[in-house]
Amino acid sequence: MIRKLIFTPLLFLSLVIYGQNEIEQTLEKIHQTSLLEGQSYEWLRHLSNQIGGRLSGSLNAERAVEWGKAELDELGLDRVWLQPVMVPKWIRGTFEYANIETSPGNTVNVPICALGGSVATPLAGIRAEVIEVKSFEELKSLGEQKVEGKIVFYNRPMQADLVNTFSAYSGCVDQRYSGAEQAAKMGAVGVIVRSMNLRLDDFPHTGSMSYGDLPLKKRIPAAAISTNGAELLSSMLALNSTLKFYLKQNCKNLPDVQSFNVIGEIKGSTYPEEIMVVGGHLDSWDLGDGSHDDGAGVVQSMEVLRLFKKIGYQPERTLRVVLFMNEENGQRGAMKYAEMAQKNAENHVFALESDAGGFSPRGFSIDTTSDKLEIIQSWEKYFEPYLIHLFVKGGSGADIDDLKSGANILAGLRPDSQRYFDFHHASNDTFDAINKRELELGAAAMASLVYLIDSFKL
Amino acid sequence: MIRKLIFTPLLFLSLVIYGQNEIEQTLEKIHQTSLLEGQSYEWLRHLSNQIGGRLSGSLNAERAVEWGKAELDELGLDRVWLQPVMVPKWIRGTFEYANIETSPGNTVNVPICALGGSVATPLAGIRAEVIEVKSFEELKSLGEQKVEGKIVFYNRPMQADLVNTFSAYSGCVDQRYSGAEQAAKMGAVGVIVRSMNLRLDDFPHTGSMSYGDLPLKKRIPAAAISTNGAELLSSMLALNSTLKFYLKQNCKNLPDVQSFNVIGEIKGSTYPEEIMVVGGHLDSWDLGDGSHDDGAGVVQSMEVLRLFKKIGYQPERTLRVVLFMNEENGQRGAMKYAEMAQKNAENHVFALESDAGGFSPRGFSIDTTSDKLEIIQSWEKYFEPYLIHLFVKGGSGADIDDLKSGANILAGLRPDSQRYFDFHHASNDTFDAINKRELELGAAAMASLVYLIDSFKL
Repeated sequence: MIRKLIFTPLLFLSLVIYGQNEIEQTLEKIHQTSLLEGQSYEWLRHLSNQIGGRLSGSLNAERAVEWGKAELDELGLDRVWLQPVMVPKWIRGTFEYANIETSPGNTVNVPICALGGSVATPLAGIRAEVIEVKSFEELKSLGEQKVEGKIVFYNRPMQADLVNTFSAYSGCVDQRYSGAEQAAKMGAVGVIVRSMNLRLDDFPHTGSMSYGDLPLKKRIPAAAISTNGAELLSSMLALNSTLKFYLKQNCKNLPDVQSFNVIGEIKGSTYPEEIMVVGGHLDSWDLGDGSHDDGAGVVQSMEVLRLFKKIGYQPERTLRVVLFMNEENGQRGAMKYAEMAQKNAENHVFALESDAGGFSPRGFSIDTTSDKLEIIQSWEKYFEPYLIHLFVKGGSGADIDDLKSGANILAGLRPDSQRYFDFHHASNDTFDAINKRELELGAAAMASLVYLIDSFKL
Repeated sequence: MIRKLIFTPLLFLSLVIYGQNEIEQTLEKIHQTSLLEGQSYEWLRHLSNQIGGRLSGSLNAERAVEWGKAELDELGLDRVWLQPVMVPKWIRGTFEYANIETSPGNTVNVPICALGGSVATPLAGIRAEVIEVKSFEELKSLGEQKVEGKIVFYNRPMQADLVNTFSAYSGCVDQRYSGAEQAAKMGAVGVIVRSMNLRLDDFPHTGSMSYGDLPLKKRIPAAAISTNGAELLSSMLALNSTLKFYLKQNCKNLPDVQSFNVIGEIKGSTYPEEIMVVGGHLDSWDLGDGSHDDGAGVVQSMEVLRLFKKIGYQPERTLRVVLFMNEENGQRGAMKYAEMAQKNAENHVFALESDAGGFSPRGFSIDTTSDKLEIIQSWEKYFEPYLIHLFVKGGSGADIDDLKSGANILAGLRPDSQRYFDFHHASNDTFDAINKRELELGAAAMASLVYLIDSFKL
């Protein structure tokens, strides 16, 4: 009895120590491999510089699908396939232009871009007076008479004192997404939205918008204006409330077209029916090359599987990388993937998305039961050498959200968010805004979390 | 007795809650003020774009002193003064140039820059064979015969798998600092050092070097080569070990000149004799405009005092901002400040330096007794809303290190380090590499720590 009492704790202790050492060593190997022999940065260089912006339905989106499949084929996974999905097709067209006219013929050009999904202006453009508001409430309080025939200018800035810039984004994005619908209902002829950007600069930031259930003939054109442009327009309106704004754009909505989610997997050695997903979205907006949104997430997700191959780690559960199509303006890829998962009665025990930029990883946002969250939070110690501290309860990612079931775990990589909206949906979201090490550390953080989930069978 | 037992914990609890709320509210106010009404970014815009690189002894350094004093005067502090200090004066001269000659007349230019403190080459330059080494040990093992008459090329790269890039820097910088001294002792005629940079690019990175006690006539010219240049030179040497390297530079060491530390203070309301210092260094290298190194630290330190004024916080101890002169190539400002502090028997209870770039703040490195460290670490909870988690034992900053006494507290701001060496001492360390929010969050983190130190009288 005494012997047993002494022996058991010692054995237990040595198992724990061995386990900890193994975990620490694996995380170290993952990080070393990503930083010293990583592929993510070179993958992104190709995706960004050789393919470029890849809006759903575009030729570039199809080139990205081909590239993604070819690269996954190269990795020697157990299975690589394309999952067909119909996606919306919106094109920016050949021109978009705006100016402020303070008196006849006296104009100042301002940088604008059509919002994704917007209708065109008439060929000659629209010229109208502007009514500036900060919210839908303010718009409604004005009454239809003051709005009718005018261009509504939504100018509520992102709240700079929120440390998490995604919270600041959430607090503003209603203007972009539903601004046209709300303004059209009150008789406005067009909508200009202050770009979702915390800096003052000259880049207009596009993004998705919806007309809700407005009939076609009621839809009005919507464009984003750069933050500097918004400040200028606002200050000129203060001096001259009857100035005219001129907007011309020939973007267009076309019928849906066929596209694909790109999927690859390493079959689990012990629990092949239990699926872990890592993913990002392959489509991007068309203005830049989508390096941060979400080229980074795409290559980091691919890198997770490559790192496991490279360090010789065979997951016990099936590990799948999914490059989702059409996150930006429809989330059709996400819906299709979830639909097929349900149809095939697949068991998704875990999904992790990277769709918040390729910046220094700070941790994860985790959507699961409180007991599982607590276990994951206890792993923080393993991540401390890599300066990763955030293991917070919260949302995961737009592409994996539909995979939520009672007991499974969804997570989102949380990189440093301070610079993200400098680039988000704008023409400066390009490869030069990516730091190689930050990208690689993000991939390593993702691989580390997947490894722990697989090891502990959470 | 029972009553007392019940009452005491309640009273204690309410005091604790009140104190916590006050702390949380003050930190929130500090962060809001820095992010919404901060001055640090506009200060830095001026220092970087209107003054520019400000190497000790240069006209720009003197302009920076005047600017710093004028701006502190504007803040309405209790006292602002200049502390005279003699500083070294080294000038880059009018040309620096290098090429690789694979056969007579067949040359490839490579980007180099003289190291700070280096002697010039003869006017006609030097042309010699190259011997590549990775360390002083390797150099010594070659023996004098193989080194004599040659240019020594130090090509040990920064270790990319170290997450803390400052550790990678520490592991390499001996090549830059002492490489010429070591090579000269073995009869080399010049030294080329791989730039301390984790990226492969075309920027040569300068930095200080020393000849130790080598007599003047034994000193050999030393230059940094860009990482791309180093890779090229190394691969060409592998093909042709007798290629020639040509180096020409006319930098120069001049006699010491007068300069100044710029100092301002808010007198402590209760303990004026207990001094808390925040600081950065006003000098910079000459290639860029020193925005990250250390314009950021300068304006963040100034901002700490401005934030206290702005939110109406009167420190109980004396709070002093010190803009140190000559950190880069002599640390004379730091030595002078410490000398005068000792001479005047000043009691420095706390000093905090920001000299690691203007990136997202991650925490602090703290040099103090273990009991005080433990108390500071217990404050982590107050910093969590601002995503600041690091409170680690470690060095503080080169300018405040000499203020160490038995029981006082020295600290260094620790921003995210991934991008720092992309810019460090190179011509791309310019204002456009600064993100406004990251800079402001750093200033707020510093002010928060100073506030807590002042409140708890640590």
